[in-house]
Amino acid sequence: MHVVVNAAMSADGKLASRRREQLAISGREDFDRVDQLRADSDAVMVGVGTVLADDPSLTVKDADRHSARLDRREPKNPARVVADSRIRTPPDATVLDDDAETYLLTSEAAPTDFIEQMEEAGAYVLAAGEDRVDLTTALAKLEGEGIERLMVEGGGELIFSLFEAGLVDELRVYIGAKVLGGRDAPTLADGDGFVESFPELALESVEQVDDGVLLTWTVEESDS
Amino acid sequence: MHVVVNAAMSADGKLASRRREQLAISGREDFDRVDQLRADSDAVMVGVGTVLADDPSLTVKDADRHSARLDRREPKNPARVVADSRIRTPPDATVLDDDAETYLLTSEAAPTDFIEQMEEAGAYVLAAGEDRVDLTTALAKLEGEGIERLMVEGGGELIFSLFEAGLVDELRVYIGAKVLGGRDAPTLADGDGFVESFPELALESVEQVDDGVLLTWTVEESDS
Repeated sequence: MHVVVNAAMSADGKLASRRREQLAISGREDFDRVDQLRADSDAVMVGVGTVLADDPSLTVKDADRHSARLDRREPKNPARVVADSRIRTPPDATVLDDDAETYLLTSEAAPTDFIEQMEEAGAYVLAAGEDRVDLTTALAKLEGEGIERLMVEGGGELIFSLFEAGLVDELRVYIGAKVLGGRDAPTLADGDGFVESFPELALESVEQVDDGVLLTWTVEESDS
Repeated sequence: MHVVVNAAMSADGKLASRRREQLAISGREDFDRVDQLRADSDAVMVGVGTVLADDPSLTVKDADRHSARLDRREPKNPARVVADSRIRTPPDATVLDDDAETYLLTSEAAPTDFIEQMEEAGAYVLAAGEDRVDLTTALAKLEGEGIERLMVEGGGELIFSLFEAGLVDELRVYIGAKVLGGRDAPTLADGDGFVESFPELALESVEQVDDGVLLTWTVEESDS
């Protein structure tokens, strides 16, 4: 499986303000790039925090890209994946609508009624890990479902966990022309943080997009 | 006064790990660039948190740059400025040594014995603001001392406060090829964070330096 993390951050590394309100960090050109990346992926993954904060659809917006996917005998939209260790996905989340398949990754501790509720709402529930989602196992299960190209859109907790598990192959970061600040604002990689064995990157490309810069990094010595 | 903030952050926007240990985010080429920027400045400023975490000297390292400054009838090293609202600067801090002049910015609430201790250690104490340093007033006082070109090296709390006061003219950020992660790790701009009226930047240049990228931004509508 090839895992690409894609995110937009402010010039000071924040995904959103401390209030976690969604705000436009990039512009039209970057939105289009992200839409293409989604269209080129088998699945688009987020953490449940992103579902709760933004209620995203994670679908491809451009009709020509839908057609191109259908021509390739792929579903109109890539599948959606939500990592939800603490069973917080609301049954009316947009990510559970009929526009795409949705996998809900949860731990083996998830109560049966939550699983049933999610399955009724249309999700495929995959359990991996005792108390919280074991991402290595979960991604292997997704690969078993035919997902080879996985795009991860955040948030910072999920991104950190994927780096911690050595599962990230590529990191694409749009850096926008704004300062958000805030010691409690969400950043590109949150979690507990590394104190040694920091993941090392190699710069693949630098591109000016909208008013900011897109950096593409590959991850060295990834285990995935 | 022209205020340049210069800092190195990881690909995910962190100045250091959550343990606040100094680690090399950039390399030799960037160190040389920073040394030149120091040599071109009248003063180099940090917050007291940086003094406590790293005990930096903030002096110019290259002998030719010392000579060039002396030829211009400037002191061998730029002055050093420490913003210290909570009077935490230790009297044996390297920043108080004889290699350069040092200004300690504190509030009017600073106790007389702390001021005397700092003056005995060789610092010029400038008081501005009732309970914490009023940076607008403090920088005006520094300008009165002949400081026109101020370089700010961090940390994230000071950088945020300077943006909040509308005092930053330019932001130079080196982005290194590492992921540090950590919701509690220090970032380029910490503080309370903005929730509206986010400072807007304009991208001036993008340059590959060492294994990373140097972004130079100017700040739009700065009040300084």
